[in-house]
Amino acid sequence: MTTPTGHGLMVALDGPFHAVKDHWRSSITADDVVRDPSQSLPEARAWALQHLVDIANRGYAVAGFPGHPGSVAESVAHFEMMALGDLSLNIKAGVQHGLFGGAITNLGTSWHHETFIDDVISCELTGCFAMTELGHGSDVSSVETTITYLPDTDEYEIHSPTPSATKAYIGNAGQDGKMAVVFGQLLVGGTSEGVHAVLVPIRDSNLDDLPGVTTGDHGHKGGLLGVDNGLLTFDHVRVPRTMLLNRYGGVGDDGVYTSPIASKNARFFTMLGTLVRGRICVGSGAAMATRKALSIATRYALQRKQFRRPGMGSEVTLLDYQSHQRKLMPNIAKAYAYGFAVNEVSQHLQRVTDAVGQDPSASRELETRAAGLKAVLTRWANDTIQVCRESCGGAGYMSENGITLIRQDADIFATFEGDNTVLLQLVAKALLVDYKKTWGDMDLRGTAQATAKLLGGRFMERTTAGSTISRLVANAKVKPESERLHARGWQVEMFEFREQHLVETLARRMRAASKVPEDAVFDAVNECQEHMLEAARAHTDRTVLEAFVGGISQCHDEYIKALLIKICDLYALATIEENRAWYMEHNRIDGARSKAISAAVESLNMQLRDKALELVEGMGVPEAWTSSAMLRDAGGQNASGSYVRVHHLPVTEPAV
Amino acid sequence: MTTPTGHGLMVALDGPFHAVKDHWRSSITADDVVRDPSQSLPEARAWALQHLVDIANRGYAVAGFPGHPGSVAESVAHFEMMALGDLSLNIKAGVQHGLFGGAITNLGTSWHHETFIDDVISCELTGCFAMTELGHGSDVSSVETTITYLPDTDEYEIHSPTPSATKAYIGNAGQDGKMAVVFGQLLVGGTSEGVHAVLVPIRDSNLDDLPGVTTGDHGHKGGLLGVDNGLLTFDHVRVPRTMLLNRYGGVGDDGVYTSPIASKNARFFTMLGTLVRGRICVGSGAAMATRKALSIATRYALQRKQFRRPGMGSEVTLLDYQSHQRKLMPNIAKAYAYGFAVNEVSQHLQRVTDAVGQDPSASRELETRAAGLKAVLTRWANDTIQVCRESCGGAGYMSENGITLIRQDADIFATFEGDNTVLLQLVAKALLVDYKKTWGDMDLRGTAQATAKLLGGRFMERTTAGSTISRLVANAKVKPESERLHARGWQVEMFEFREQHLVETLARRMRAASKVPEDAVFDAVNECQEHMLEAARAHTDRTVLEAFVGGISQCHDEYIKALLIKICDLYALATIEENRAWYMEHNRIDGARSKAISAAVESLNMQLRDKALELVEGMGVPEAWTSSAMLRDAGGQNASGSYVRVHHLPVTEPAV
Repeated sequence: MTTPTGHGLMVALDGPFHAVKDHWRSSITADDVVRDPSQSLPEARAWALQHLVDIANRGYAVAGFPGHPGSVAESVAHFEMMALGDLSLNIKAGVQHGLFGGAITNLGTSWHHETFIDDVISCELTGCFAMTELGHGSDVSSVETTITYLPDTDEYEIHSPTPSATKAYIGNAGQDGKMAVVFGQLLVGGTSEGVHAVLVPIRDSNLDDLPGVTTGDHGHKGGLLGVDNGLLTFDHVRVPRTMLLNRYGGVGDDGVYTSPIASKNARFFTMLGTLVRGRICVGSGAAMATRKALSIATRYALQRKQFRRPGMGSEVTLLDYQSHQRKLMPNIAKAYAYGFAVNEVSQHLQRVTDAVGQDPSASRELETRAAGLKAVLTRWANDTIQVCRESCGGAGYMSENGITLIRQDADIFATFEGDNTVLLQLVAKALLVDYKKTWGDMDLRGTAQATAKLLGGRFMERTTAGSTISRLVANAKVKPESERLHARGWQVEMFEFREQHLVETLARRMRAASKVPEDAVFDAVNECQEHMLEAARAHTDRTVLEAFVGGISQCHDEYIKALLIKICDLYALATIEENRAWYMEHNRIDGARSKAISAAVESLNMQLRDKALELVEGMGVPEAWTSSAMLRDAGGQNASGSYVRVHHLPVTEPAV
Repeated sequence: MTTPTGHGLMVALDGPFHAVKDHWRSSITADDVVRDPSQSLPEARAWALQHLVDIANRGYAVAGFPGHPGSVAESVAHFEMMALGDLSLNIKAGVQHGLFGGAITNLGTSWHHETFIDDVISCELTGCFAMTELGHGSDVSSVETTITYLPDTDEYEIHSPTPSATKAYIGNAGQDGKMAVVFGQLLVGGTSEGVHAVLVPIRDSNLDDLPGVTTGDHGHKGGLLGVDNGLLTFDHVRVPRTMLLNRYGGVGDDGVYTSPIASKNARFFTMLGTLVRGRICVGSGAAMATRKALSIATRYALQRKQFRRPGMGSEVTLLDYQSHQRKLMPNIAKAYAYGFAVNEVSQHLQRVTDAVGQDPSASRELETRAAGLKAVLTRWANDTIQVCRESCGGAGYMSENGITLIRQDADIFATFEGDNTVLLQLVAKALLVDYKKTWGDMDLRGTAQATAKLLGGRFMERTTAGSTISRLVANAKVKPESERLHARGWQVEMFEFREQHLVETLARRMRAASKVPEDAVFDAVNECQEHMLEAARAHTDRTVLEAFVGGISQCHDEYIKALLIKICDLYALATIEENRAWYMEHNRIDGARSKAISAAVESLNMQLRDKALELVEGMGVPEAWTSSAMLRDAGGQNASGSYVRVHHLPVTEPAV
């Protein structure tokens, strides 16, 4: 039933993952992946586990595992499609196949792969990713759990030395998990080798705790009721030496610790780096869930009418209102932008995976991209799903209409796989380090003088569609003033200016902060924190715009391409508009230009409103999966064009 | 356990309602009003009904009812305190005593009061407020339900002529309600007299539907699981003539319709106007729930530590981070500002009630204030509770820590009692009408020339603490430039300028829009919609600031007053900062001033951070009602100062 235009947009947005995604759309039904939002906690858990096993047994969980078909990039696409169904199922799969299976794949060696992977895929061996502790979440390097090598028995002993060492919020730990990848400080002969991961059986086949292991259940949460988050403590639990995931270090047959990476710090970050897929998946999963909410809200806005036109008889369709367009249209444009960005970062992940550690620079860049995207996409997801709920009025709050469950489930995406505030700081630090490499110890005067040359520098390297973008920027410079706003090159320059200026000034402030007396360093650096977050967002925005440009350049249908160009205009201008205060503060635009940008956004909203249905179709959410009663029943419109639902009225015998 | 400073702040913020609120704090326990967030839907409904009856039977539900002690203003204070307990209980009470009881009180006459009020208070007679229909929610005047006078039997017949006339989202309709106040088009002798309200029994004492009535249940919702929202349809249901709530019109003994208000339109809006308390309660209830979330998040931020100081051993308390202060401190300041605004509007409600319709201008102003506050406070509530959840990391998502339930329950406050977008337009229209009264048909040139004189004009009348504010504005003009940002008069002028400019330019655009050809009027007015919303927000912000100034002037403890002045600075500057793009676009501030405002906000955050605990105490949330496991267990901090919880780890016998 999809329109040709909607289909064309979907093909473009799916990009290199169209085949994988279309396979889901054609072979997976709503019954396979969509959950009843009114389920109780036990029902939701049972549903999620059962449907995970079903999906896995049908071969949808093998991509990215060694010796199985499907690339790691495709595993992200699988994850994205599942997110369109239900986020509990999605995160249950993410815990089992992504985190638990991914840790074995990336931190383990061939023995681990051969011994465990098939059972992980089938869910015969259910597992946890036990990193976060009550005392330390964001600060992973400070986890207190110990993994001590015991030479006498050639075993490792896993122990929780304090209550705050309790592993917390761990998926599969509350109920279903039989084994855990436990992160702890590795101690060998009295020496700490830093954080390592070890496989520890936690429950027997009856799901009773094994000796020395105490599990706890977090019970009810703000959402994701299908995922059994729980707690784990270890009381001197021993496992054979083979159970350490020893790709980056471990005790050998001779009882001596060795690692291919000498620096403890570098080793830790290398290990964490191999887990980057989780971060990509969380960002992209949240973005897909947002597409679903936008699909529901926009379809509703196209059918619902309220208030009559002045002096005329007909009622007005919601999406015809300027403020309703403001709520939905720029967010649809962002959904496209973030979709192209995820496609690109998935391919980047594939390249880094294929390089098997031989391209550390690409790895660091990938980690930075993934952290920034995760923070920006999950922030947008939370805000936008809420807008979608509200834009459907009271109907939006009824669970059967499909939005409230998404809202509740997506909430925690802002926190897990890295708290957004912490992740953005990580991005900012990465930008500063790159910057430092380029500019060394140049003094402030020199920095100021050299600013104009920075654009082509290392940290601003255009990694996507680079030549296309350079051409667009050059073209924009010769455009007449009146056409500037819609010149992609001008937009790109605006994004680049923001990132460049924020990073430059941040570097200057941080360098100054680093020179104050020891006891004042924290305060000085702390005062730069908001600046860091802003720089990180600016960087991420810029890379997203580049990915959109890259996506458009891959589209060879001229009509679809023209539409994508307009959607990209809306994304770019809406983003510049959000940051217009900053641009004015830095004299990049004046008040008149700022108002012109807002007017351009409103004009684009109005122009794209007529293609709203096609734009929704292009987001690729199977209509049946929206599972929204108010949309299903739309056929029964009455004479006044209003939405009607009657099936919920039980036929009750009148009481006598 | 409250500090003297915290207590002093609480007394100031409680203002004229301190006695009522303190009575709640001293005599109501957490068991009375705090719900277990993991309850299933049936459990939540049973709990809410039972606790409502208990609270009512203890005399906490009589304020505002005719012939009972307690003023209508105090009934708002009661509602606010209940919101600190549980929002399901709060809304269940709001439906029963506020909407159902309030409609009988305000739209009914003495017979209705004498016959029904006592049973309403005791919850013996449970009732619904059946206004919204599937087809028409915001557009109340278009409801399709009919109330037809039948002269032969001297009855009214209530009927749902179409499926879209189904009453929807109605509290108490899903399960518990025995009677409903039904809004419909009154038809007498073939003439429509506009929307009226009639009492209709809907269920018998066994809670079975009465003949001709069909009830439906919305089932699971995004929150407020304790409230049984449902649907109602009527198939030619007859009630005696006495059942019409006829204070503003009805059929007399002679079978003829009469009303004290001749105009059908004026009658409709007068009737709606008497229900304004509901809107005040929804805004203030959301604000109180937000205070609770802020209390939990801030107390957590004062105990939780993460990451070590550079070069030093100790871990950093979350609230010491600049970005964490950004998340919480300005929102605490807003909580105070909105608290003073609610106190003022409650007193305004009392004056209007006491005037018994003799001060229509005060009534219109009250409706405008209530609409604006409801929209601004519920928007802030949704955004801020989310910030609170995220600022507690993974712990914030665990239901036992107390925030997720507030988040889910407060969501719908943005929609019910008037969708926020619709309410803000109502405010803007009221401002335009006032404006028109003052400026009549003055042409654009005249308007522009007269702008400088507008400040003392009708629409900008300073209704609170007027003389104090005039003095502050005069004082600010002679302050040196460096002290301006913290001069209250300068802040007031900034707020006033924004409102004035937005309303003036809106009036100009609307007048132009009204002169275009008939078929283009909708588009022309529609293009002003975002402008209308912005004008309404600016108006509300200005009245909130005035209320804060008024509240400070009532405080006679100099130390507390000095603290309140700083909190007010933070509220004012954070609000100006949020609108800094607008101020720059309108050349009211330049980029340097804009950056100075942001710096001032950050500096105030830092200064007030040391009083964070006292500020939280001042918000008046009983500590026991926060019901947050992570705060209760904070005593068990380990050596590293981290938060520890162990009680959730069940002691399981190790499996053999």
